[in-house]
Amino acid sequence: MAHVTFWFEFASTYSYLSAMRIEQMARKADVDVIWKPFLLGPIFKAQNRETSPFNIYPAKGRYMVRDIERIAQERGLAFRLPDPFPQNGLLAARLALVGLEEGWGPAFIRSIFRLQFAEQQNISERSTIATALALAGALENEAFERAQSPEIKSKLWANTEEAQTRGIFGAPSFTTESGELFWGDDRLERALLWSRWIN
Amino acid sequence: MAHVTFWFEFASTYSYLSAMRIEQMARKADVDVIWKPFLLGPIFKAQNRETSPFNIYPAKGRYMVRDIERIAQERGLAFRLPDPFPQNGLLAARLALVGLEEGWGPAFIRSIFRLQFAEQQNISERSTIATALALAGALENEAFERAQSPEIKSKLWANTEEAQTRGIFGAPSFTTESGELFWGDDRLERALLWSRWIN
Repeated sequence: MAHVTFWFEFASTYSYLSAMRIEQMARKADVDVIWKPFLLGPIFKAQNRETSPFNIYPAKGRYMVRDIERIAQERGLAFRLPDPFPQNGLLAARLALVGLEEGWGPAFIRSIFRLQFAEQQNISERSTIATALALAGALENEAFERAQSPEIKSKLWANTEEAQTRGIFGAPSFTTESGELFWGDDRLERALLWSRWIN
Repeated sequence: MAHVTFWFEFASTYSYLSAMRIEQMARKADVDVIWKPFLLGPIFKAQNRETSPFNIYPAKGRYMVRDIERIAQERGLAFRLPDPFPQNGLLAARLALVGLEEGWGPAFIRSIFRLQFAEQQNISERSTIATALALAGALENEAFERAQSPEIKSKLWANTEEAQTRGIFGAPSFTTESGELFWGDDRLERALLWSRWIN
């Protein structure tokens, strides 16, 4: 079956929009989703950017909030920018990798995004992550322990390096087997079409 | 009749995509288009950006070219990035303002975009602009003369200042009568919906 790779960063608002719809949309398109958490921080740093472009350019940041409010409303999603923004998604990303190996990854990922962007919780806090683990049916202590393993840590770095190699500069991004790159939740439909067309 | 304001900058690749489809799409949506040329340069400068983000971030620039190639192909448009990029659209923008007063504006605007992004011509050169004026049925010498008038020059600055006041930070942008702002060719459909919904 054709597949699409979904590159997401937990701090990214538009990644939230994609995370909440990619599974259903891909199923309708008969495409498998490969979930790839990565870190935008090192990629921004390599470009001499210190923080999110939404913080560097206030007009862009204000626009982004309104843009997502409108889209979230269309889709029946709650959205409010959390404080602080952007948040530190390192631990959540490591746990997502554990979950993707153990089968509870997508449910955990969606819960983390929802707790952050619908409920303004801080996803770097253990209590928030514990809620998401519980919602995904994962064993909390075992999951935290595996998340600190060298194997998982290096996997997250490998994802981030691979993202950079593929020319990824923002999130969400989507890549197809033929090497096409798509950036932004608004390119998801097109990414699914290209995933099917060219194999 | 409801209307949408289309903020464009001639150097902007995604403005090309919108300029080539907005009139037909707005007609189908029963919405009038107000064409507003403005300059991104002063807005970028106010944000301490020296040039196009597509030049500042090479990965983003490479992506943009591929993204537009795919979209242009879907829509039957030719696209190749001109050299130099971004181009200086100051004179073309002043002429667009003349044309928008005299009735040949939209045809001139589309021709300028096409000469630049389909035929890689330099739109700061008089010969390129003369071709676009001819395609729009305008009188070349009269148009150039009016384009240098203080009235037209200050109109372009007023547009640029109004864009900044409205929170515009990129092109194309669309604003509705109710004050909603949309950024990017991929938001045109939504901008037309909002132009109709809220009046």
